[in-house]
Amino acid sequence: MSEYIEHDKNGVSVGVVEKKFFTFAKPPDEICLESGAKLGPVTLAYETYGTLNEDKNNAILICHALSGDSHVAGYYAPSDPKPGWWDIMVGPGKGIDTDRYFVVCSNILGSCKGSTGPCSINPKTNRPYGLDFPVITIGDMVKAQKRLIDHLGIKKILSIIGGSIGGMQALEWSVRYPEAVASTVALATATRHSALAIAFNEVARQAIMADPSWKGGNYYGGPGPDTGLTVARMIGHITYLSEEAMREKFGRRLQGREKFSFRFDADFQVESYLRHQGSKFVERFDANSFLYVTKAADYYDLPGQHGSGSLVHAFAKARAKFLVVSFTSDWLYPTRHSRTMVQALKKCGRDVSFCEIEAKWGHDAFLLPNDRLAGLLRGFLARVFFDESNGKNAF
Amino acid sequence: MSEYIEHDKNGVSVGVVEKKFFTFAKPPDEICLESGAKLGPVTLAYETYGTLNEDKNNAILICHALSGDSHVAGYYAPSDPKPGWWDIMVGPGKGIDTDRYFVVCSNILGSCKGSTGPCSINPKTNRPYGLDFPVITIGDMVKAQKRLIDHLGIKKILSIIGGSIGGMQALEWSVRYPEAVASTVALATATRHSALAIAFNEVARQAIMADPSWKGGNYYGGPGPDTGLTVARMIGHITYLSEEAMREKFGRRLQGREKFSFRFDADFQVESYLRHQGSKFVERFDANSFLYVTKAADYYDLPGQHGSGSLVHAFAKARAKFLVVSFTSDWLYPTRHSRTMVQALKKCGRDVSFCEIEAKWGHDAFLLPNDRLAGLLRGFLARVFFDESNGKNAF
Repeated sequence: MSEYIEHDKNGVSVGVVEKKFFTFAKPPDEICLESGAKLGPVTLAYETYGTLNEDKNNAILICHALSGDSHVAGYYAPSDPKPGWWDIMVGPGKGIDTDRYFVVCSNILGSCKGSTGPCSINPKTNRPYGLDFPVITIGDMVKAQKRLIDHLGIKKILSIIGGSIGGMQALEWSVRYPEAVASTVALATATRHSALAIAFNEVARQAIMADPSWKGGNYYGGPGPDTGLTVARMIGHITYLSEEAMREKFGRRLQGREKFSFRFDADFQVESYLRHQGSKFVERFDANSFLYVTKAADYYDLPGQHGSGSLVHAFAKARAKFLVVSFTSDWLYPTRHSRTMVQALKKCGRDVSFCEIEAKWGHDAFLLPNDRLAGLLRGFLARVFFDESNGKNAF
Repeated sequence: MSEYIEHDKNGVSVGVVEKKFFTFAKPPDEICLESGAKLGPVTLAYETYGTLNEDKNNAILICHALSGDSHVAGYYAPSDPKPGWWDIMVGPGKGIDTDRYFVVCSNILGSCKGSTGPCSINPKTNRPYGLDFPVITIGDMVKAQKRLIDHLGIKKILSIIGGSIGGMQALEWSVRYPEAVASTVALATATRHSALAIAFNEVARQAIMADPSWKGGNYYGGPGPDTGLTVARMIGHITYLSEEAMREKFGRRLQGREKFSFRFDADFQVESYLRHQGSKFVERFDANSFLYVTKAADYYDLPGQHGSGSLVHAFAKARAKFLVVSFTSDWLYPTRHSRTMVQALKKCGRDVSFCEIEAKWGHDAFLLPNDRLAGLLRGFLARVFFDESNGKNAF
């Protein structure tokens, strides 16, 4: 192991990993989407960590949130300044232990990190799809992931784990492919968006579409809607932090000045933090993907789509064991939503563990170092693995 | 009284009123602003309701919020479809009873509803100020209001009443002109903005400034930054409603359709509500004024400016009686802020009444019909008037 890994403050890293690609649904075998539209070919970018055991019963699928990617842990090269987005949780000896489990993470359909999305080439025109890309759903994302899991030869996944929009995917897996899921971990998520969550997403989308450089989605090859996407991301970042976190992190402290500018500069630290987050995002994310993924999240309605409006009926289809985790200061996906979920799961007689973690950082808490969460995951996965291997493979 | 007034569902209206203008600080007698800049001439648009009594001790000044104006009650013409913005509270027999009190409301400095602001003509260039308009503060707004009150021959105001940014003005009056204020009513407000409130304002400002039609503020005479201002207002409207109100008002109900559009249309009611609010706002408000007024609110820091950081020291300067009101579901100016204010006032030995009103509509609650608030105001004003007139004029 190279020096940079030994000194990683987050513990031992999985080391250097490689992004792989799986392409399927080549025309005429296109996949049929929930909207009724067809799409193909479809490529999913994915990464794997650890080793699939002989029984193929130690696989974990991690589902990422809005702007995530397949790079959940490790480094692409020793010189990389930062590891994958959940490196604190995924690695040897970590909460999701790659010495024990075979971990898979794939970039979601509609994203821009190697999987097929609006910035991919439309084979019919040989130009990027733009808004000709069909509107996709969480169900469509999960359907595509299932193809990848089949391709990897995994019949039953030990655990599907996801936070936020990733949590929606994890829940969707449990009712769509009940026989293929031994357990589901839903972190900081909901079975459907509240009006408030939809409202924030809609304003963010409007900010992008209001940017003249968006050009109805046909901006590829020219300047993109950078200012619109910046504003959209700023809105998002407000919702990811709790009021308490904002107060503690920024308060009313000024940024690099002792007095007000009496101009429209960023006087306050919170202003320059948001501007910075917004402009950084433009470098790494596609504006159209932002539209598609947020729309999929807003459309998501587990009780509506699988239970004729009843969450109990929807979860009655599931067979998995569940771990549901919420965070006290998360106001985007508050504990209330998780409790409703847990109550419905209990009514169906499902094996469900629930934990509300005291955390002041708001929705973002699920991505931050948290020994409590790591311990919960470690214990839950060990228990499920014990049960799945009929006690012969206890950790 | 004409038919439209007799049938007004909000009770008896003050009837037809007239917008008046008061101009002062004609060069070279410009006013000196907190930033150090000078400004003149300054015009304030204002309206009055009821009659100033002989002792001139029944005057009430109402301070409006971000996008308000001087038109607090009544109609400009019998054909007007809507009365002033707080007609439910201001009128004969209402919470602020125009049969008893002489009510004044003036449009704030920096706004665009008749008072001097960035869309006014800069006498030095004979063109609209745009961003040459100096950045103003809540203190500057209050200083200008004081000139109007002096002009009206009122030495001591019975009560300064304001909600939200209007509440900041009311509080500022109490410490800036202690001898001129018998009482202060601070509704749904704070002595300074939290990081969260600044964050929302900053994103809204960025949405405006990101619009190429904003042109650094020099858009007058051409198309303005309508799309940017629309997004800014949408952001605002999210913060004005509580999550509960959004859930009840919109939930996940679709707008004018039974199925998802699978396009980027407004599928949900909450989306079309926000789009509607945003586009309506463009017709009635100036984007630059939005920048100036929100910046003034973000800069506002009563303890910082009047108490060297201590709210107790700041309020020690006040002489008024206080009524502080918060609303349970207001997450922009939560009850916590009001309690801090009340505790500081008590420590200074001020006469202060506090009420947290149970209301599910969020920050907007202070503008909605509320018998509890009307009763509180009626009682508080009667008591202050009784004290001010040494018991000779009890209602």
